[in-house]
Amino acid sequence: MHINKIGIIGLGLIGGSMAKALKKYTDYSVTAYDIEPEIITSAVYDGTIDGEMLPEECDMIISALYPEATVSYLEKFCKRIKKGALVCDCGGTKRLVCDKCVPIAEKCGFKFVGAHPMAGTEHSGYGFSNADLFGGASLIICSAEKEPVMEEVFGKIGFKTFKYTTAENHDSVIAFTSQLAHVVSNAMVKSPEYPKHPGYSAGSLKDLTRVAWLNENMWTELFLENRDFLSAEIDGLIENLKKYSKAITSGDDVVLRELLREGRMIKEKIDGR
Amino acid sequence: MHINKIGIIGLGLIGGSMAKALKKYTDYSVTAYDIEPEIITSAVYDGTIDGEMLPEECDMIISALYPEATVSYLEKFCKRIKKGALVCDCGGTKRLVCDKCVPIAEKCGFKFVGAHPMAGTEHSGYGFSNADLFGGASLIICSAEKEPVMEEVFGKIGFKTFKYTTAENHDSVIAFTSQLAHVVSNAMVKSPEYPKHPGYSAGSLKDLTRVAWLNENMWTELFLENRDFLSAEIDGLIENLKKYSKAITSGDDVVLRELLREGRMIKEKIDGR
Repeated sequence: MHINKIGIIGLGLIGGSMAKALKKYTDYSVTAYDIEPEIITSAVYDGTIDGEMLPEECDMIISALYPEATVSYLEKFCKRIKKGALVCDCGGTKRLVCDKCVPIAEKCGFKFVGAHPMAGTEHSGYGFSNADLFGGASLIICSAEKEPVMEEVFGKIGFKTFKYTTAENHDSVIAFTSQLAHVVSNAMVKSPEYPKHPGYSAGSLKDLTRVAWLNENMWTELFLENRDFLSAEIDGLIENLKKYSKAITSGDDVVLRELLREGRMIKEKIDGR
Repeated sequence: MHINKIGIIGLGLIGGSMAKALKKYTDYSVTAYDIEPEIITSAVYDGTIDGEMLPEECDMIISALYPEATVSYLEKFCKRIKKGALVCDCGGTKRLVCDKCVPIAEKCGFKFVGAHPMAGTEHSGYGFSNADLFGGASLIICSAEKEPVMEEVFGKIGFKTFKYTTAENHDSVIAFTSQLAHVVSNAMVKSPEYPKHPGYSAGSLKDLTRVAWLNENMWTELFLENRDFLSAEIDGLIENLKKYSKAITSGDDVVLRELLREGRMIKEKIDGR
């Protein structure tokens, strides 16, 4: 299907940024739906979108809702979506949406592809959205085949890399790369020493605690949808931390140096120096 | 004592940056000692220092060695240090150096003050040193009284804040703000998922693992000098991580949301949004 009209569901940080980017960098018609009507009014007023979204008119629909809400939306409105349309989401877990939405789409004659943009900030909401959030970013696409339409549309708004994988593998890797990072950051600030850090810290603490400020409603949902992989990651980190603690407590400089060297070598091998 | 000649012991990342900064931003005579004679030769050649350091000539000496090496240096050369001189160090733990060096200094007629610049990079060595490493940084000073000479000298090379505290409190806070951050970062990269991160990660993982690349010889010494405080921090983090893991495994959204909210509120309270 030739893409002319794109509809965006949910004008939060990601959906708002998608709309602004599509408006800035493409010629598509861009409409949107949000649960808060004032957001739509203000997005029309500031020129971010062309109007309110009617699903039956859209050649492509991008859901920027949390995974459960994407599923609910499609369960409710699937019959209003154009036959042959392409629907994708942007959620942080992929097994739930792909398991539920792919069959709904097949039944109703459109196509659903799970996707996850590797971009964001510690802030959320339309107020923080911006047209350049996706510059140079990677888009994870849960599909067994290449998706040229998605690469074309998302390539125009700044995405540089398209990673194809399964929903299962996405959730397994993301449990570590994104979810564990947020858990650790959020747990770090609970040290009784944290309030004393001003003047006693430099870049390392700042980096480790940047994402401690997070949207607890979104992450609670995402973490629970990925509970198997995420709890394995947390428990794996705990086991590793115990090794350092044991070497430090017992004053074992040989073991400690080797633990640190191991981590340094992995970092060097994967990311270079 | 009026400061005219400053000597720097150890031209690594910190000592080299101190020398370059003093040369760039002050009129002091700057000399240095390093265990590798070629470093001194090249530092003279590139104009970083005025020559090799003679302790008897220096009004102020800055040791940029690891803590144990600072102690050894002073034990060996204390008699050659000028009466009334000011000697400070830059090491990452403070109890060891202060406990050993303050009495040596008193016996030999000079003054020793433990200090710790809150600046650095994940790289080490003279090759990475630069004159602007300390711009806007904080200097922790282990002294019961104000040290105007230190504030004057270090203020000239970019330090903006001077935090006075005890060696004990320094080590307690730094166990968290710097040491724990390095342990966590180094442990994070040991997840079996880490090698798969390219294309599946954004800023949060990058931040969390930046300092995974570290100098294992320096950190082994610093961690073991601070084993009581550091192991308590690691164990505290482990206890907190277990709470998240338990809530996630059992699917308890109420507890999980509250754990995340708690962390978010602490971050907001201490650092703002």
